[in-house]
Amino acid sequence: MFLPHKILEEKLRNILREDIGQGDITTALIVPEDINTEAEIIAKESGVIAGIEEAKIFLESLELKFKASVADGEEVRRNQKLMKIFGDARTILSIERTLLNILSRMSGIATITRKLGKKIQNAGLKTKIACTRKTAPGLSYFDKKAVVIGGGDSHRLHLDDMVLIKDNHIAVAGNVKKAIEKVKKNISFSKKIEAEVTSPEDALIAAQAGADIVMLDNFSPIEVKKAIKLLERNGLRNKILIEASGGITEENMMEYAKAGVDIISLGEITDSPKALDMSLELARIALANK
Amino acid sequence: MFLPHKILEEKLRNILREDIGQGDITTALIVPEDINTEAEIIAKESGVIAGIEEAKIFLESLELKFKASVADGEEVRRNQKLMKIFGDARTILSIERTLLNILSRMSGIATITRKLGKKIQNAGLKTKIACTRKTAPGLSYFDKKAVVIGGGDSHRLHLDDMVLIKDNHIAVAGNVKKAIEKVKKNISFSKKIEAEVTSPEDALIAAQAGADIVMLDNFSPIEVKKAIKLLERNGLRNKILIEASGGITEENMMEYAKAGVDIISLGEITDSPKALDMSLELARIALANK
Amino acid sequence: MFLPHKILEEKLRNILREDIGQGDITTALIVPEDINTEAEIIAKESGVIAGIEEAKIFLESLELKFKASVADGEEVRRNQKLMKIFGDARTILSIERTLLNILSRMSGIATITRKLGKKIQNAGLKTKIACTRKTAPGLSYFDKKAVVIGGGDSHRLHLDDMVLIKDNHIAVAGNVKKAIEKVKKNISFSKKIEAEVTSPEDALIAAQAGADIVMLDNFSPIEVKKAIKLLERNGLRNKILIEASGGITEENMMEYAKAGVDIISLGEITDSPKALDMSLELARIALANK
Amino acid sequence: MFLPHKILEEKLRNILREDIGQGDITTALIVPEDINTEAEIIAKESGVIAGIEEAKIFLESLELKFKASVADGEEVRRNQKLMKIFGDARTILSIERTLLNILSRMSGIATITRKLGKKIQNAGLKTKIACTRKTAPGLSYFDKKAVVIGGGDSHRLHLDDMVLIKDNHIAVAGNVKKAIEKVKKNISFSKKIEAEVTSPEDALIAAQAGADIVMLDNFSPIEVKKAIKLLERNGLRNKILIEASGGITEENMMEYAKAGVDIISLGEITDSPKALDMSLELARIALANK
Amino acid sequence: MFLPHKILEEKLRNILREDIGQGDITTALIVPEDINTEAEIIAKESGVIAGIEEAKIFLESLELKFKASVADGEEVRRNQKLMKIFGDARTILSIERTLLNILSRMSGIATITRKLGKKIQNAGLKTKIACTRKTAPGLSYFDKKAVVIGGGDSHRLHLDDMVLIKDNHIAVAGNVKKAIEKVKKNISFSKKIEAEVTSPEDALIAAQAGADIVMLDNFSPIEVKKAIKLLERNGLRNKILIEASGGITEENMMEYAKAGVDIISLGEITDSPKALDMSLELARIALANK
Amino acid sequence: MFLPHKILEEKLRNILREDIGQGDITTALIVPEDINTEAEIIAKESGVIAGIEEAKIFLESLELKFKASVADGEEVRRNQKLMKIFGDARTILSIERTLLNILSRMSGIATITRKLGKKIQNAGLKTKIACTRKTAPGLSYFDKKAVVIGGGDSHRLHLDDMVLIKDNHIAVAGNVKKAIEKVKKNISFSKKIEAEVTSPEDALIAAQAGADIVMLDNFSPIEVKKAIKLLERNGLRNKILIEASGGITEENMMEYAKAGVDIISLGEITDSPKALDMSLELARIALANK
Repeated sequence: MFLPHKILEEKLRNILREDIGQGDITTALIVPEDINTEAEIIAKESGVIAGIEEAKIFLESLELKFKASVADGEEVRRNQKLMKIFGDARTILSIERTLLNILSRMSGIATITRKLGKKIQNAGLKTKIACTRKTAPGLSYFDKKAVVIGGGDSHRLHLDDMVLIKDNHIAVAGNVKKAIEKVKKNISFSKKIEAEVTSPEDALIAAQAGADIVMLDNFSPIEVKKAIKLLERNGLRNKILIEASGGITEENMMEYAKAGVDIISLGEITDSPKALDMSLELARIALANK
Repeated sequence: MFLPHKILEEKLRNILREDIGQGDITTALIVPEDINTEAEIIAKESGVIAGIEEAKIFLESLELKFKASVADGEEVRRNQKLMKIFGDARTILSIERTLLNILSRMSGIATITRKLGKKIQNAGLKTKIACTRKTAPGLSYFDKKAVVIGGGDSHRLHLDDMVLIKDNHIAVAGNVKKAIEKVKKNISFSKKIEAEVTSPEDALIAAQAGADIVMLDNFSPIEVKKAIKLLERNGLRNKILIEASGGITEENMMEYAKAGVDIISLGEITDSPKALDMSLELARIALANK
Repeated sequence: MFLPHKILEEKLRNILREDIGQGDITTALIVPEDINTEAEIIAKESGVIAGIEEAKIFLESLELKFKASVADGEEVRRNQKLMKIFGDARTILSIERTLLNILSRMSGIATITRKLGKKIQNAGLKTKIACTRKTAPGLSYFDKKAVVIGGGDSHRLHLDDMVLIKDNHIAVAGNVKKAIEKVKKNISFSKKIEAEVTSPEDALIAAQAGADIVMLDNFSPIEVKKAIKLLERNGLRNKILIEASGGITEENMMEYAKAGVDIISLGEITDSPKALDMSLELARIALANK
Repeated sequence: MFLPHKILEEKLRNILREDIGQGDITTALIVPEDINTEAEIIAKESGVIAGIEEAKIFLESLELKFKASVADGEEVRRNQKLMKIFGDARTILSIERTLLNILSRMSGIATITRKLGKKIQNAGLKTKIACTRKTAPGLSYFDKKAVVIGGGDSHRLHLDDMVLIKDNHIAVAGNVKKAIEKVKKNISFSKKIEAEVTSPEDALIAAQAGADIVMLDNFSPIEVKKAIKLLERNGLRNKILIEASGGITEENMMEYAKAGVDIISLGEITDSPKALDMSLELARIALANK
Repeated sequence: MFLPHKILEEKLRNILREDIGQGDITTALIVPEDINTEAEIIAKESGVIAGIEEAKIFLESLELKFKASVADGEEVRRNQKLMKIFGDARTILSIERTLLNILSRMSGIATITRKLGKKIQNAGLKTKIACTRKTAPGLSYFDKKAVVIGGGDSHRLHLDDMVLIKDNHIAVAGNVKKAIEKVKKNISFSKKIEAEVTSPEDALIAAQAGADIVMLDNFSPIEVKKAIKLLERNGLRNKILIEASGGITEENMMEYAKAGVDIISLGEITDSPKALDMSLELARIALANK
Repeated sequence: MFLPHKILEEKLRNILREDIGQGDITTALIVPEDINTEAEIIAKESGVIAGIEEAKIFLESLELKFKASVADGEEVRRNQKLMKIFGDARTILSIERTLLNILSRMSGIATITRKLGKKIQNAGLKTKIACTRKTAPGLSYFDKKAVVIGGGDSHRLHLDDMVLIKDNHIAVAGNVKKAIEKVKKNISFSKKIEAEVTSPEDALIAAQAGADIVMLDNFSPIEVKKAIKLLERNGLRNKILIEASGGITEENMMEYAKAGVDIISLGEITDSPKALDMSLELARIALANK
């Protein structure tokens, strides 16, 4: 997910625009127009950092200098300094909260993603953790980028990059077989097809009909195993990827991983992440007049 | 927080635009152009609903019919139906996730706000729960509206509606007294002044200097009581409001409430809320051709 | 009112975009692509300058160099040079009118605001001159900033930063007391409450009901005095601010000031200001090829 | 100047967006969600009305009903009702000021334009009153449309619709002859050429070089006559239009008209118009629940 | 490619906005405000129609009534009526050109796509015609949708929906094998991988390294056959798709199809299509006053 | 057509934004974050180059260095280098297609315009080639600028810069005389009037009624001559410009030129141009770490 900086800059500035309103009246009344200052962002708890690239682009676009002490994806401990910012004091104080909101949301998402991913790696498994399209409204770019930084899979970026046949589509088509056939007739060769199924039998049907990925929706770990066995018996296990989704939490996740799925997707890492606490502190009040 | 519908509609459509990309390819391949359908939104867990007004405006702006079964602020139980949607099947399926993301984030925020507020009310106290500007980036409008629906206080809506003198402003001004004096010299009569302080003594100084609200930042409950006593002794307790902020969680919140503050503000209700789980289900597949 | 430069830059560029259309055809046909030039902005009449910060941000964002000879709020005389501009000749000529329109409107507003404010100061009074939301459509930021530069009060910046209960709200609520009570039940602690009243008696009721500010709407100076006396007799004069509004002009303004109000607000300083005449002149035609 | 309604609607909504901020907090706290109301706009002084089409499009786009009692360009007297508005009470109250700001600025411009135009007509002259590009920043569409409604000429709509060679262009080109020649070599056949001149001799040169319109800049009425005579003597008077501009006011305007120019342009009708006073009054508080 | 109508409407309105400028001055001067009219769009040459859905959404969003006589993808003959439009005469005349530009570009693209596709079908082959990202700047949505309507394949919709490793990426990575390996390490499971190759040997390497699709760039038909044979010999032909691209024209296209590729992509169908000639004619001048 | 660079930059970035989606996933996976590279744009066929200014502004706004080897309007041969680009490798690769699409469309338009213009010049005629408003949807600025670079006339830039009375306007007005009279009554002095006519007689009527330009629509060359003779006989030929339009192609164009029209306008140069083939090649893979 690489965006030319100017495009990302506009996304970031839209966020600032909402918070700033007609202007920062406190800063205007207290901070003189003509001083520079230096500030630091400090982690108030340990976690995985994400949003460094965003911070850099955001700050530089506001004519502030920026020096990161950590890279995206790095683990930090409590009280660790993350970056230095230097420049116009009024600008720094008026964008502080916007910057911290971006960094702490992204870092919170990277932290939980990393944690879950490590649990699986530590068990010697290869299952991938993926997010879903359950993100904060309008923040799909930032939420999914944070997942990738945390070592997870971004899944679909929006509604146009993979076919994902869900329950409601199947309801319209009649059954999963018909839905996949309909798709295969007209789909671009550049797209994969994933189909959501609700029984091991349908998993087999979806694989036979030509799905690239089968999503086992709300399966118990036992049903997952049953579905995999069925696919294996039909010589289809290696032709498709299997995603488990629905009702999977940090607690029961390992059972799904052990059952042999390729991907586990969890809505909660992007719709309910805990923000990583950080703060911005002025390192030197007023270095000198500009 | 009343926005004319057309203004809110544009905020909502910007959210949809990110998710939709160049279009919903799955729906285009499976769902015919010319059928209407009916869908329901169902709560998958109990909580306080918020976002009903947003859902209505969003759906109607997409030429879908909408009928809510619950009102903003209402408590719902697991499996309760929240609303019915009727109209073009392609449109409904392609906006499903955007709609659910808005509703479940707002409802998640309203739910935790209501829960904390009730705890205080149940103890017979009048302390208000407030959110901060720690929101999901760019979602201040939705996050704060959800707090208000949950019975909380929206605090500042952005940087232009109240003066809030924070640690970094005080560092620039020299001390809290100087900062308040500087502000009072030029501030519009239409704005309140709040000052963040780090000791009971500074709380007194801020009140004497003319702050309307004093924010006790990272005080222990004991320090809070000390500050309040100091203000009472100086006859200033009734002239100002006292907000406790920083390091307050669901666990220790009641100690602050009992210590006698007017407002308790918590970042976590808007920067780390748990989304309320919901789903959209097609009630009838294809009612009839349009 | 401090806006990070990039945000202000976009407001300014939107203004340019309307004027420029598909491009400046005159300049394209006459001025070569590759020459720099130097220009000066000159006041054609005396007044108070506002818009220097806007000019700086606007010009620098267009890659032009800028050097101001006066600061925002400074008084200038006829023919005084306000600033020098240096850079691409085509760009300078194509943005000339947009720049002058911004500077002369803002300076016109600052000039009249300063004039009225001085009249009051010269009489030894402390009454503040405030503007209203009667601005040129969509130019609230610029109009209000110019008022502040001229020494006036910005009043509400938009509809979300103070409660202002007007005649129509009172009509809906029933009476001013009910309106204030309704507001006080749910309002954020961060906002002030102002109520518009039409009689001295209602001024008292509003103060008793807890308004922070009472706006005496279309009162004669005699009625103003009556209202103030009533508030004094009830020990409420010092607890509230009094704003006189409606029908106040440069001519009768002093009578209101002498009657003892805290704030006088006039729509005409922002909805009918006289633009301060200025012109842009090329100082050197073509300094050198770039 | 006909804009399809949806395009105009967006211009109008951008204006509303600035004023509304995060929402109208007063209206939200006082006015129930579910009531309709009826309002009237009333002129508080006599003048020429402009902005009726804008009001209609703005209000209907907000799902309010609208019935005008006057048409654009009509003269109204003090206290005359201009239009009725019916619909959601919250929406009406939150857009009141935006609507009035548009109507009173446009009507103020139409009023002064009509007044000046009539003066000329009453003297039996055919000179046209034109505005310039000196408008409120970014409001060129509205300001110029109001001039046209008042019977004036819109002049250039932006920088791409006519070549207007001004002093600075001439300075770059060397002299007015060279400037016109340069333009004529490459200009599209679809555009007229106007040249600003500072002496009767240059007026002749410009006409000979092929200008369609000559602008006599800051000429005294006597110089104007001299220029016209010179053109007549050279048989060019009927081949070109003559515009007088610069330093023309309501007071000295008739001298220019009598001197025989075709067009008189005045910056002040769009950069310093007096807004026409109006107000919105609720006709019936709450007609009925919706 | 299904976009909710409101999203598509905005794309369409942006196109109109550029053409309309400050308004349609001709229509404003000639066509009264208050008449409705009926118009027809007529094909001036035979071809495949695309853009009917766009026309419908565009016209209805402008409050015009619309009735299509043909469907997207239908073949029409010269002088065939495509649709009727009914409503405000000013609006119809001012959007005529924008509407025709959209319809004739999309139909031109659909026409050439269909023609090429039929040639292949008539030869009994299954090769698919695909477009590339060589579209008119910013018109990817419309150009690709027209290709799909013409029976072609949309290929990538933008840079985020499939990995396509091109010559420059390979140059950076070192060789095609390294490039594919680098991609496979971190790519989301939801995306396919296509690699561009310049020799039959590299085609084999790419397939072995795990590409889903191999793009034979600027191969002669003989080289194509060689590459396919090599893949067959290694048992990989059925595991991948083969796209021929570069230097393929209407003239030599069949040789590539016969050589056995799965997909032929041509830049010219979207970067150099011939617009399908159409016109809008008023069927009845003025039906009646509105 | 000169646009200040920042305004043009935004048009260019909107084009990039559509293509980039949520980001360039291929480049992100293969190209390291921290390397610079150098690239060249090379013409793959001969033609006239246009878009150099656009390329410069686009690339510099993305913080890439740029050095053109050719100027807008220059003729190039196959394999000629057009420009060098230097900077961040990821940015270069992700904007390659957008840049090439702009350059090759504009150059294609300039090439055909130049070709037609030369044909006329070579015959010793002065007729001008003009484009129409038949452009790619929303690309009027780029298409018309390319025509001008190719030596053609831009015609109207949008609907507000000249009155062009077309068949449908005449149908509404009754006849061409009435239409012109209606326009002349209210039109701004700054605008020309062109009228489309369908017979030599109407050409005369239009000229007599005061049109500045007469457009002979779908005339045969013989009818054109008849119309010109009629105008000459009435002493009006020199008072107006004559444009031939409709059904004119590269093949029959010279007959119209020879018939004596001033302007020949062709839709096909902007609605059906052949893109000039170009490619971007990395000159040095990775110059050095940044």
